[in-house]
Amino acid sequence: MARMEHDFINWLRQRSTSSESLLVGPGDDAAVLSLPSGNCVVTVDTLMEGVHFEFSSCSPQQVGRKALAVNLSDLAAMAAKPVAAVLSLSLSRDSAGRISREIFQGFADMANQFGVAIAGGDTNTWEGALVVSVTAIGVVEGQGLGRDGARPGDWVVVTGALGGSILGKHYDFLPRVEIAQRLADNYVVHAATDISDGLSMDLHHVCTESGCGAELELGLVPIADAARQLASSSGRTPLSHALSDGEDFELLLAIPPDQWKTIGEDPVSEQLTRIGRFVDGSGLFQISPTGTKEPLQPRGFQH
Amino acid sequence: MARMEHDFINWLRQRSTSSESLLVGPGDDAAVLSLPSGNCVVTVDTLMEGVHFEFSSCSPQQVGRKALAVNLSDLAAMAAKPVAAVLSLSLSRDSAGRISREIFQGFADMANQFGVAIAGGDTNTWEGALVVSVTAIGVVEGQGLGRDGARPGDWVVVTGALGGSILGKHYDFLPRVEIAQRLADNYVVHAATDISDGLSMDLHHVCTESGCGAELELGLVPIADAARQLASSSGRTPLSHALSDGEDFELLLAIPPDQWKTIGEDPVSEQLTRIGRFVDGSGLFQISPTGTKEPLQPRGFQH
Repeated sequence: MARMEHDFINWLRQRSTSSESLLVGPGDDAAVLSLPSGNCVVTVDTLMEGVHFEFSSCSPQQVGRKALAVNLSDLAAMAAKPVAAVLSLSLSRDSAGRISREIFQGFADMANQFGVAIAGGDTNTWEGALVVSVTAIGVVEGQGLGRDGARPGDWVVVTGALGGSILGKHYDFLPRVEIAQRLADNYVVHAATDISDGLSMDLHHVCTESGCGAELELGLVPIADAARQLASSSGRTPLSHALSDGEDFELLLAIPPDQWKTIGEDPVSEQLTRIGRFVDGSGLFQISPTGTKEPLQPRGFQH
Repeated sequence: MARMEHDFINWLRQRSTSSESLLVGPGDDAAVLSLPSGNCVVTVDTLMEGVHFEFSSCSPQQVGRKALAVNLSDLAAMAAKPVAAVLSLSLSRDSAGRISREIFQGFADMANQFGVAIAGGDTNTWEGALVVSVTAIGVVEGQGLGRDGARPGDWVVVTGALGGSILGKHYDFLPRVEIAQRLADNYVVHAATDISDGLSMDLHHVCTESGCGAELELGLVPIADAARQLASSSGRTPLSHALSDGEDFELLLAIPPDQWKTIGEDPVSEQLTRIGRFVDGSGLFQISPTGTKEPLQPRGFQH
């Protein structure tokens, strides 16, 4: 049911920007959307208290924001345009009122920022801990950007800088919706995914799905300041964090060299870094700044 | 993310009937659907262990089935054609493997029965109890059947028989997708909802949203055998169960009298019962078999 408690429906209606897409909003049995032309893209992601977050180190607003943001990152990885989202909250009985309003606030702020219509939701209370489940809907031309289209010779390209996301970025990251759409609308991109498990792990997934291997030039990997900060106490190198920390929510792209050349003249290229290339065969390899080539073990979050 | 554990993706691929709508299925960042023409309808509903079900009195398969069925019932209440669904499972760590497979089985059986593509999902384990959240997507012409379109003079019509759902029907009910579509495709129906909170409560919702009242003819209300069975031990009458038991998941419809006449010649009418009419003003009234008219207090599950 798209139904929510009446309080929440009214609250949401006041805080959500109106959307032309939303023909029937929260309050009826289901929401009705007029989707822009293209195919419908759908993704679901769930955040659980004690597994994905602890309120000792984050606010309910951050959880609400992130619950939508991770889904928008998945839409970005398909080069889809976000249209709408629904959320389901399983709330602890004792803190339901305050917590749910703050979660909604974070969720609604993110939705408004990306022009996402809040199409409905479901809230329940129980004795258990908080579960926030969000389903996002977008549209895309054709089949969007899969993980399986990388071809030997394509450059391995990433957005942003990587590693150390745990220090804060995993809450306040900006889903790469705009970059993905700009690339997909104007250039040929062969494959994309978002870096949620860690660069090397997600690159491994793209290689497996695409039936090829990849060589990373370690000297080219953009390392986030947070990765250096984390390295000062973790006993690991900043590069190691950049290669294997999860939840960067940057894009990992397979771009043909001729397209990469053209993209270089586009301002969007300032947010992109070429870090290697897809190659025939299978497996990951790392090339050191001195040119030594060795196998690279994919590391990161294992589902 | 539309991603699931690889085991589950493979398992699902084997058990799901292929769907022309599903251009990109589980395993990529998000699923891509080619929707039939019409507007996109979306609804979410969540079942929580200890709140909505207990494994002492149901099987994981029943939970999986119901988690999808309640959403299909919401789609039916909009006269939408179901297309796809995604599910999110928060599983107790100690029983995750077996439970999740059985839930998936129930979910997939229901999906296959209604031609619903399983577009993705998200599974996580934790120390807490089970949460199953499902988002279903369908298509509808125009805005579908709202709750707010009932007009004074319309008949109040229901599908099936009501009450005592707790004895079993709330798990094995058949969402009224087919009846809703047949009615919407061939006749003018002013409003619809599914009876999830209880007949009188849901009728009250329709009246409030539509800005009218309603009179129920108590002698016409179709009473389920289960309502009689329950009455034998509950100390309440079968009619009381029919009026206020939740989770019947039948349709409650507002149908203009001229359309009702025409529907009478359609075999679908065998599954419909006229139980009263919408009237000017506000509030619910009950008319006894002897013609006495009294206010009817809406009772049922309160959100």
